Amino acid sequence: MSTVNLWSDEDANNDPAVKAVFDDIRIVRKSDFVNNFWRALANDPIQLRQVWEQVKQVMMAEGELSPLTRELIYIAVSTANGCSYCVHSHTASARAKGMTNQQHAELLSVIGLASRTNALATALQVPVDPVFDIR
Amino acid sequence: MSTVNLWSDEDANNDPAVKAVFDDIRIVRKSDFVNNFWRALANDPIQLRQVWEQVKQVMMAEGELSPLTRELIYIAVSTANGCSYCVHSHTASARAKGMTNQQHAELLSVIGLASRTNALATALQVPVDPVFDIR
Amino acid sequence: MSTVNLWSDEDANNDPAVKAVFDDIRIVRKSDFVNNFWRALANDPIQLRQVWEQVKQVMMAEGELSPLTRELIYIAVSTANGCSYCVHSHTASARAKGMTNQQHAELLSVIGLASRTNALATALQVPVDPVFDIR
Amino acid sequence: MSTVNLWSDEDANNDPAVKAVFDDIRIVRKSDFVNNFWRALANDPIQLRQVWEQVKQVMMAEGELSPLTRELIYIAVSTANGCSYCVHSHTASARAKGMTNQQHAELLSVIGLASRTNALATALQVPVDPVFDIR
Amino acid sequence: MSTVNLWSDEDANNDPAVKAVFDDIRIVRKSDFVNNFWRALANDPIQLRQVWEQVKQVMMAEGELSPLTRELIYIAVSTANGCSYCVHSHTASARAKGMTNQQHAELLSVIGLASRTNALATALQVPVDPVFDIR
Amino acid sequence: MSTVNLWSDEDANNDPAVKAVFDDIRIVRKSDFVNNFWRALANDPIQLRQVWEQVKQVMMAEGELSPLTRELIYIAVSTANGCSYCVHSHTASARAKGMTNQQHAELLSVIGLASRTNALATALQVPVDPVFDIR
Repeated sequence: MSTVNLWSDEDANNDPAVKAVFDDIRIVRKSDFVNNFWRALANDPIQLRQVWEQVKQVMMAEGELSPLTRELIYIAVSTANGCSYCVHSHTASARAKGMTNQQHAELLSVIGLASRTNALATALQVPVDPVFDIR
Repeated sequence: MSTVNLWSDEDANNDPAVKAVFDDIRIVRKSDFVNNFWRALANDPIQLRQVWEQVKQVMMAEGELSPLTRELIYIAVSTANGCSYCVHSHTASARAKGMTNQQHAELLSVIGLASRTNALATALQVPVDPVFDIR
Repeated sequence: MSTVNLWSDEDANNDPAVKAVFDDIRIVRKSDFVNNFWRALANDPIQLRQVWEQVKQVMMAEGELSPLTRELIYIAVSTANGCSYCVHSHTASARAKGMTNQQHAELLSVIGLASRTNALATALQVPVDPVFDIR
Repeated sequence: MSTVNLWSDEDANNDPAVKAVFDDIRIVRKSDFVNNFWRALANDPIQLRQVWEQVKQVMMAEGELSPLTRELIYIAVSTANGCSYCVHSHTASARAKGMTNQQHAELLSVIGLASRTNALATALQVPVDPVFDIR
Repeated sequence: MSTVNLWSDEDANNDPAVKAVFDDIRIVRKSDFVNNFWRALANDPIQLRQVWEQVKQVMMAEGELSPLTRELIYIAVSTANGCSYCVHSHTASARAKGMTNQQHAELLSVIGLASRTNALATALQVPVDPVFDIR
Repeated sequence: MSTVNLWSDEDANNDPAVKAVFDDIRIVRKSDFVNNFWRALANDPIQLRQVWEQVKQVMMAEGELSPLTRELIYIAVSTANGCSYCVHSHTASARAKGMTNQQHAELLSVIGLASRTNALATALQVPVDPVFDIR
């Protein structure tokens, strides 16, 4: 139950800008599957293009963090933000990139601990130690 | 400016339960520094002990995720939860565990992307694709 | 699947305080449709009345912001707070007040950008520039 | 007290990628002032460039929402996300774009109402009315 | 460092609508102290009046929850929402209404537990058990 | 639709660590019903055990706050965090511990008020009054 129309492949084929992104998603991911996030975002072809380019660059480009580590961070943010769709899709992505059940369990234990201590630090209004200041 | 008293070392020395945790923090971390979070939490020696034990187990025990990866996840959660103290203390922890500037930049790029797409998925109320269901 | 009973029109007709609000909703909106939010809120007739009065005053009264602008702000807050029901109902309200697809796309682009920079500013713990202080 | 170094103009002058963005900020805004957000973001010149380009496109490009309306939406999101820095900087931006005290008051009344009803709808777990489904 | 002017008593004395609320706050609370929240809200006398009336009714009226229990709930919400000002002011209010250190410790232990399990339930996307449905 | 497998009783019977917790849940609660949260958490028997022990200690142990008051605080946190599952399960728990409709209505009125004033205080960036500082 979305707030916008979800674009079918037929819809996308009638809009070159959308079709180009859907095609690129399929090529990059080596899969015919285009998940609903992109089908909803297709209502704004400009944002569709930009988000997809950002995803490719942030999640897939060479870097010092592995693609799997980036997915774990993504799940952590999505959980804290309460985004049901994102938790689902990125847990699936992490599994596709090799996340083991043990890694998932460790991820959740860190998320659970951080959520607890975040709340405690906020309730206590703990002042930041001067030593933590970078300057 | 905290909502509770911050325990000095002198205060801690007068309470064996608090002193025991402060001592253990110093031994485990091989440092005399006890940061304000623990000094605030000391008002409840039971929770102080439990949180410290949880931190040791979740953040330091052997596992499949490296201690640095766990810190990155911690920063991600703390950022999404808007915990200023936790962002400061765990960014410092991550640096102490070897986080490079490049890794920090990549962490922030994932946090920024996830925050953007979390909001978009929520505004669009994207339905979860059936393929993401584990069952 | 709600945590309280949803009041049917028959239920409402048996409680004058609830009936009065439902009647007013229908008159003000020139529609027979009373959405589930009010049917859930009806379990506390006092809060039902107060929230409805606040909605009329904040969303419908004369002012310098147009009714549509107010709906856009409402959607923005509801998205950031992750309220699925509110995103749905206020996106529908905004459309009923004339929101175009282009305006919806622009709204989402601002929400997406703000969510990204909010997270970055928090992760970086950027100090507020003195010039932003009103005093 | 930030988690990264804030780049001075002298620092920026030693890095062409950063200098180019700082220069563009000054030209576009017709002001010599570069606020701390950009000075913190400068630690990652790639993200600095991308966020600035996104800001120009989302907040300044021609569209159906006025620049002021976009700032009001930005403040709404930043408030709900609890980003102190962003609330400060975008309230200042909105004022610079002509926001009156009355408009600010109306903005806050919508934010306050939405925050109240968001919480109520979540606590009540109100089911989405079928009529709100776009499909 | 606020985004609006904080009204001094002298300012308030020049605006009958604001003065009336400040006077009532002093009478009801039997104290000359008017905290900054009201001095900031005074920029919109209508919202000032409405919020104060809501506070009196919700926090002080006769009911089945004690005034202290209501303050504990207020602190819990303010903590989860990351409102620093509100955590400070309502922790002080709770103490003024008799909250003991032990009660504060128990409050924090519940907040910490709920924050942990909230995050876990969201990361796991646990489906609601049919038995929890009220209907 | 969860991100992990939900453990059936048969699954649990094949894992002594999980079975021990499920058995204890049934004994402590004097009910055969084990809700989905525990069936999802069972994928990590260590966290399953720890969370259950924390629940017993925080929610059931002797203390100065009644078990019902603790449930109200739990609902407040879960609502502010937007955890649908937790709002459902703890509203049911509160009812099982005797929460009346009137108490539920009062709880919601405090949550609604706090959510409104949290947002206002954040939008106004109200500085904390020095008198609220504990030190």
